[in-house]
Amino acid sequence: MATDRPMQLGMIGLGRMGANLVRRLMRDGHRCVVYDVDESAVRGLEGEGATGATSLQDFVAKLDRPRAIWLMLPAAVVEPMLGKLTDLLDEDDVVIDGGNSYYRDDMTRAKRLAAKRIHYVDCGTSGGVWGLDRGYCLMIGGQAAAVQRLDPIFRTIAPGAGGVEPTPSRAKGDGTAAEGYLHCGPSGAGHFVKMIHNGVEYGMMGAIAEGLSIIRHANVGKEGREIDAETAPLRDPEAYQYDIDVAEVAEVWRRGSVVSSWLVDLLADALARSPQLDGFEGRVSDSGEGRWTVDAAIDEGVPAPVITAALIERFESRGLGRFTDVALSAMRSEFGGHAEKRARPTPPA
Amino acid sequence: MATDRPMQLGMIGLGRMGANLVRRLMRDGHRCVVYDVDESAVRGLEGEGATGATSLQDFVAKLDRPRAIWLMLPAAVVEPMLGKLTDLLDEDDVVIDGGNSYYRDDMTRAKRLAAKRIHYVDCGTSGGVWGLDRGYCLMIGGQAAAVQRLDPIFRTIAPGAGGVEPTPSRAKGDGTAAEGYLHCGPSGAGHFVKMIHNGVEYGMMGAIAEGLSIIRHANVGKEGREIDAETAPLRDPEAYQYDIDVAEVAEVWRRGSVVSSWLVDLLADALARSPQLDGFEGRVSDSGEGRWTVDAAIDEGVPAPVITAALIERFESRGLGRFTDVALSAMRSEFGGHAEKRARPTPPA
Amino acid sequence: MATDRPMQLGMIGLGRMGANLVRRLMRDGHRCVVYDVDESAVRGLEGEGATGATSLQDFVAKLDRPRAIWLMLPAAVVEPMLGKLTDLLDEDDVVIDGGNSYYRDDMTRAKRLAAKRIHYVDCGTSGGVWGLDRGYCLMIGGQAAAVQRLDPIFRTIAPGAGGVEPTPSRAKGDGTAAEGYLHCGPSGAGHFVKMIHNGVEYGMMGAIAEGLSIIRHANVGKEGREIDAETAPLRDPEAYQYDIDVAEVAEVWRRGSVVSSWLVDLLADALARSPQLDGFEGRVSDSGEGRWTVDAAIDEGVPAPVITAALIERFESRGLGRFTDVALSAMRSEFGGHAEKRARPTPPA
Amino acid sequence: MATDRPMQLGMIGLGRMGANLVRRLMRDGHRCVVYDVDESAVRGLEGEGATGATSLQDFVAKLDRPRAIWLMLPAAVVEPMLGKLTDLLDEDDVVIDGGNSYYRDDMTRAKRLAAKRIHYVDCGTSGGVWGLDRGYCLMIGGQAAAVQRLDPIFRTIAPGAGGVEPTPSRAKGDGTAAEGYLHCGPSGAGHFVKMIHNGVEYGMMGAIAEGLSIIRHANVGKEGREIDAETAPLRDPEAYQYDIDVAEVAEVWRRGSVVSSWLVDLLADALARSPQLDGFEGRVSDSGEGRWTVDAAIDEGVPAPVITAALIERFESRGLGRFTDVALSAMRSEFGGHAEKRARPTPPA
Repeated sequence: MATDRPMQLGMIGLGRMGANLVRRLMRDGHRCVVYDVDESAVRGLEGEGATGATSLQDFVAKLDRPRAIWLMLPAAVVEPMLGKLTDLLDEDDVVIDGGNSYYRDDMTRAKRLAAKRIHYVDCGTSGGVWGLDRGYCLMIGGQAAAVQRLDPIFRTIAPGAGGVEPTPSRAKGDGTAAEGYLHCGPSGAGHFVKMIHNGVEYGMMGAIAEGLSIIRHANVGKEGREIDAETAPLRDPEAYQYDIDVAEVAEVWRRGSVVSSWLVDLLADALARSPQLDGFEGRVSDSGEGRWTVDAAIDEGVPAPVITAALIERFESRGLGRFTDVALSAMRSEFGGHAEKRARPTPPA
Repeated sequence: MATDRPMQLGMIGLGRMGANLVRRLMRDGHRCVVYDVDESAVRGLEGEGATGATSLQDFVAKLDRPRAIWLMLPAAVVEPMLGKLTDLLDEDDVVIDGGNSYYRDDMTRAKRLAAKRIHYVDCGTSGGVWGLDRGYCLMIGGQAAAVQRLDPIFRTIAPGAGGVEPTPSRAKGDGTAAEGYLHCGPSGAGHFVKMIHNGVEYGMMGAIAEGLSIIRHANVGKEGREIDAETAPLRDPEAYQYDIDVAEVAEVWRRGSVVSSWLVDLLADALARSPQLDGFEGRVSDSGEGRWTVDAAIDEGVPAPVITAALIERFESRGLGRFTDVALSAMRSEFGGHAEKRARPTPPA
Repeated sequence: MATDRPMQLGMIGLGRMGANLVRRLMRDGHRCVVYDVDESAVRGLEGEGATGATSLQDFVAKLDRPRAIWLMLPAAVVEPMLGKLTDLLDEDDVVIDGGNSYYRDDMTRAKRLAAKRIHYVDCGTSGGVWGLDRGYCLMIGGQAAAVQRLDPIFRTIAPGAGGVEPTPSRAKGDGTAAEGYLHCGPSGAGHFVKMIHNGVEYGMMGAIAEGLSIIRHANVGKEGREIDAETAPLRDPEAYQYDIDVAEVAEVWRRGSVVSSWLVDLLADALARSPQLDGFEGRVSDSGEGRWTVDAAIDEGVPAPVITAALIERFESRGLGRFTDVALSAMRSEFGGHAEKRARPTPPA
Repeated sequence: MATDRPMQLGMIGLGRMGANLVRRLMRDGHRCVVYDVDESAVRGLEGEGATGATSLQDFVAKLDRPRAIWLMLPAAVVEPMLGKLTDLLDEDDVVIDGGNSYYRDDMTRAKRLAAKRIHYVDCGTSGGVWGLDRGYCLMIGGQAAAVQRLDPIFRTIAPGAGGVEPTPSRAKGDGTAAEGYLHCGPSGAGHFVKMIHNGVEYGMMGAIAEGLSIIRHANVGKEGREIDAETAPLRDPEAYQYDIDVAEVAEVWRRGSVVSSWLVDLLADALARSPQLDGFEGRVSDSGEGRWTVDAAIDEGVPAPVITAALIERFESRGLGRFTDVALSAMRSEFGGHAEKRARPTPPA
C-alpha cells in the first residue's frame, strides 16, 4: 500500500521519534535524507535505506529543491539549529518543526523565515514509541500552500482512517481529520493544539492514576491508626477492607467501560508486567506543554481546574512543595504546639 | 455464537439499561423473566421473547429455583424493592444489584440477606446506551460461589475479548478481566470499583472538555478588553488569534494520539452533530459516584486532586457556589471599594 | 476584673488546653474540680488552686448539683469517658465536650444523654496555646437552657470584646458574638462551625505558605536547567533572579496589608526564630476537621476548591500520593519511553 | 506627630488611592504637588492644601530637583504616562510606580529610565480604602540609593509599628519591616512581592467565603431531593438541619480564633450591614495579580494548589467555564442518554 505521491524528506534529529518517522515514511515509498550529530544514528538508518548526510551542508545539498526538511529535536535545540539551517536554504524551501516547541516561538520563527521566503510549518506529533506501527496524530499549523504541498508526507505519517471506526454523525469525505492529521490554522496553531493535547493527557493520566490508587488503598481499614489529636480517625474501618487487584481492574476497564482509552491500555500493560510498578520512584517529569496549557487557560480566563490539578500533582510528586509544607508545620506548631508526626510508613507502591 | 451454558435470569427494572441487558442475554440464548411497574415496558420485552410478569409474586413464581434475579433500578429504589422481594425468595436464591448503589449499602444488604441464606451480588455495570452491542464492563462483588454460578450470565453481558487487542505483557488465560468482567472481591467490592470508575470518568471528561474549551477560546485576543483596574489585561493578544475548529480537533485526536479514548470518540460525535453543542445548557449533573469517590479518597488519605477538581467543576456548572461568590465580592468591595463588573457577555458556547 | 457570677466547673482532661482553661477560669474567680488519668497533672493544678480528684467517682462527688463538667479530651477518648461518666451523673447535670469531636457524634450523644435528662453541650474551642491570655473563641451547640446556664463560664473563657475593635456596621448590644462566644444552634452546631473554622484555617494557611514559597523560589532563574525533552524549560530566567527575605516579607505583611492575620503573625514569629524553618520536615498532619469539612461541602454540593486543595496539599506533604505517582511514571514510560528524572535536589527549606 | 524629615512629592493619579496617599502625606507634614486628567480631583486636593498642576509640564515645573514623583494609575496607563513624563524629567529624578504593574514591566522600565539617569522605584501598595487612617503596607523594589532617599515618604505612608504587637521572637531594631514597609530587592521585587500578596489574598478570601458558604447551606437536609438516577442522594439529611447565622459566625471568629484576620473583620462588617449580602451578584473580578502569581508558581515549579484554586473559582464565578460545561453535558448525553437537569433553584444568597 505504498503512496502514489512519493516525496523526498530530510530529517534532522534521529532520536526515537525522528528515526521512526523516517522508517514509516520509507515503508510507504518516500525517500529520506537523514542527519544527526550522532553519526551512528545516521549510519543505522542508512542501513535501512535512508540517504545519510555527514554535515548540515551535505544534508542540504542532498535534498531536491524546493526542499522539505523535518526537525525532530528537543525544544531547546530548535533555535540554534534553525539559525544554522536557514543560512543554507533557498527560497520556497519548507521547514517543519515536528517537536514540542512553544507555539509562540513558531509565530516568531515563521515570520523570520518568511522574510527569506522560506516556509515554516509547525507540527505537533503524538504517538510516542508506538507511532511507527500505529501512526502519529498530527496537528499542523502554517500557511495553507506549504501545508498542502506536504500532504503526501502527512498522510503517510498519520494513522489513516482504517483502524478506528468512523464517527457516526460525521459527514463523509470532509477533510483529513478522520485520517489522523489536521491543518489547525496559521503558524503556531499546530503546536497550540498539541500543547493542549498534552494538557488533556496530563488530566486523563491523573484521573486514571488516582482512581487506581484509591482502589489500591481500599484496604486501609486493616491498618491500625494511632489515637491522638494529630491523626485523623478513620470512622468506618470496616468499609475499607478490600484487597483489590489493580492490574485486573485496569484490564477489565479496557473493554466496554466509559474510561476505556489508550492510556488505560498502556497502564494495564505496565501492571501486567509488574503489579507493584517496580522500578519507578514516582518522580513525574513535566516537559513544558502542561505548564503552557495552564498559562493559556489563565490568559484566556478559562477555568481548567482538572488539567491544572494534574500539573500541580506532578510538581508535588517531585517534592517541590517542601517550603510550603515546612511553613505549614511551623504555623501549626506556633498556634497549637503541634509536633510533626511521621506519616505512616510508605507502603510498597 | 450462542452460549453453551444457557441460564434463566429474572430482571426487575426495564429502563434503558435493564431492557438492553435482557435483549443481550436473549440474543445469546438465555431465558429472561421480566418485571417493571411500567406494564408497557413488560409487554414490549414480551414481544421480543421474554416472559413477562404481572406482579412481583408472579415474577418470583415464574423463576426456577435456585433463582437468579437482577435488579436494574435507581439507587434510591433498591432498598424498598429488596424489602418486598426477600420475603418472597427462598434459600440459595441470588439477587444481583446491577445499578449504582453505594458499596456500603451492599455490605449491609449482603449481611441481611445472608441471614436468610439468600445470596447477594453487587455488580457495577458500565456501558450506557451502547452496551447492547458493545457489551458492558462488569465489576462484581460478593461471595465466590454465587459469583461463579452466574458466570454464564456475566460472560454474555460482558464485551468479550474480541473487540480489543490483548494486553501485550499479559499472561494468557488467567481470569476473566480480559473478557470484560471481573470478580473484584467480597460484598461491595464491585460497586466500589464501579464508583471509582465513575470518578475516573469525571476526571477524564473534565480534562477533555477543558482542553477543547481552551482551544475554542484561542481567539480571545481578537476581543477588546476594557482598560481599568478591575480587568486583568491580556498581555499578548497577538498570541490568541486562532479560530480553531474544535470538532475537527476532537476527530483528529481519535487516531494515534495519546488521548484517544471512547470519551473523545463520543465528544467527536456530538460535535459532528452540532459544532456549538446546541441544546445543552451546561448544568452538569452528578449522580453520587463522584462524591463517594472523593469521600473514599479522603477517608484513605489518598490525594486525588484531579478527580476532586472534576467533581467541584460540576458543582460550579450548576451555580452552587453563589454564596461564596457574593462573599468574595463583598470582601473586595469592603477593602478596595471594588464595584462588581459584568463579565464579558457569555459567548454562544 | 473577676466575674460577678462565679460558678463551679469540673474539668476532665488536663492537657495543654484543659489546664489552661482551668487557669483562665480560676483567674476570673470560678472554682474548678479537676481530673486526669495523669495524677501529676492533677497535683499541678491543685498547686494553682484547683480541687483535685483521685477518681471519676471522687470527681463527681466533689461537684455541686446540678453539675457542670467540661471534657477536654482527644476525640477518640470521648466516647468511652462518656460511657463511664453518665452512669455517675444525675438529672439536670450538664456535660460540655470542648474538644474536636465530629458533630454527628454530638447529635447521637445528646440524644442518648437526654434520655437520662442529662444535658449535653458541644463547644468548639479555638485559640491553641495562646488562649490562656488571649482567650478562646467558642462555638457552642445544644439546648438554649443549658447553654444559658453556662454563660458565666463561656464569658470568662472567651476573649471578650476588649482587644479587637468593634465591627463598624454592627448594632450594639446584640448577642455574645462580639465577646468571642456564640451559641450557634442545636446539638452539633458548635462543633459543625468549629469544623468549618478549621477548614478555613487549612485554606488560609495553605495560601500563606504557598505565597511565601513562591517568593522564596523567586531566584530559580539563577539555577541552571538541563536541556532535554524531559525538563520544562524556564523561558525567562532573567525574571527570576530575586533573593527575597521571606521572614521580612511575613513581618511587613503584618501591618496594613490585606492579608494581615493571626496566622501571618505566627509565621512571622517562626521565621524570626529560624529563617529556614529548621527543625521541620514538612510532613503536615491533618486531624480530621479538614476532612470532615470537605465531606460536608460535598454532601451539600457546595464547591469548596480552596479548602479542598489545602487538605489534599497536606496529604501530598506526607507522600500519600506515591502509587498515583508511580502509575503516572509507568504510563509515561509506556507511551513515550520516558525514563524518570531525578528532580532538582531538594533545597534547604 | 509630624515627620522630622519633610519632603516634597508629586502625585500623578488622584483616584481613591492616590488622593488618600496625598492626604496621609500632608497630614504628616510633607508637601504635595498633584496632577490628574480630571481637573476636579486636582481642585479638590488643592482645597486640602496640595499644590495643583494644570498640565504635566506645570506639574514637573512645580517640583524641586531632584524630583520625587509617585504614579498611582491603572496598570494599563502607566506606560503612556511614563513615555510623556520621562521627556520632561532630569537626571537624578526618581519615579515611583505605586500601582499594580506587572513586575516584569518594572524591570524593562527601570532599565530604560536608567539610560537617562532617572531612577525608577516600584512600590506595591496594600491597604485599600482604609489606608488613609490605617496606613499602607509597602513592598518596594529598586536601587538602594533611590529607595533610601524616599525613606521619609515611605515611613509616613506605612502604618508604623504602633498598632500591632511586636513579633515576639524578632530582634529589635533591624530594618523597616516592623514599620510596615520593606525594600524587597532590585527593580520589580516590590511588585513581585505585592503580586504574591494578592495571590495569598485570593486564597484567604476563597477559604473564608467557602467556609461561610458551607455553614450557610448546613440546612440542606431540609430540602427535598428528587429521586432519580441524575441526582446525587443526600445520605444523611438529618445531619444538615442547621440554620446558622453566618453574620454571627463571622463576628465570633474575629476574636481569639485561628482564622482571625482583617479579611474576616471586613466580611463581618459586610454581613452586619446585610446578612444576605444583597446587592452583589457574585461575579468576582480578577485584576491580574492572581493570574501572574499562578504564572510565577508554574514557572518556578512550585505547587500552589490553594492560590490556583482561588483564581479558578473567580473564573467560574463569571461563567467562563460554559463551553467546558456543555461539552460535559454532551458527553454524558452521548454515553448515558442523560438529559440535563435543572439544578435546584438558586437560593437567595
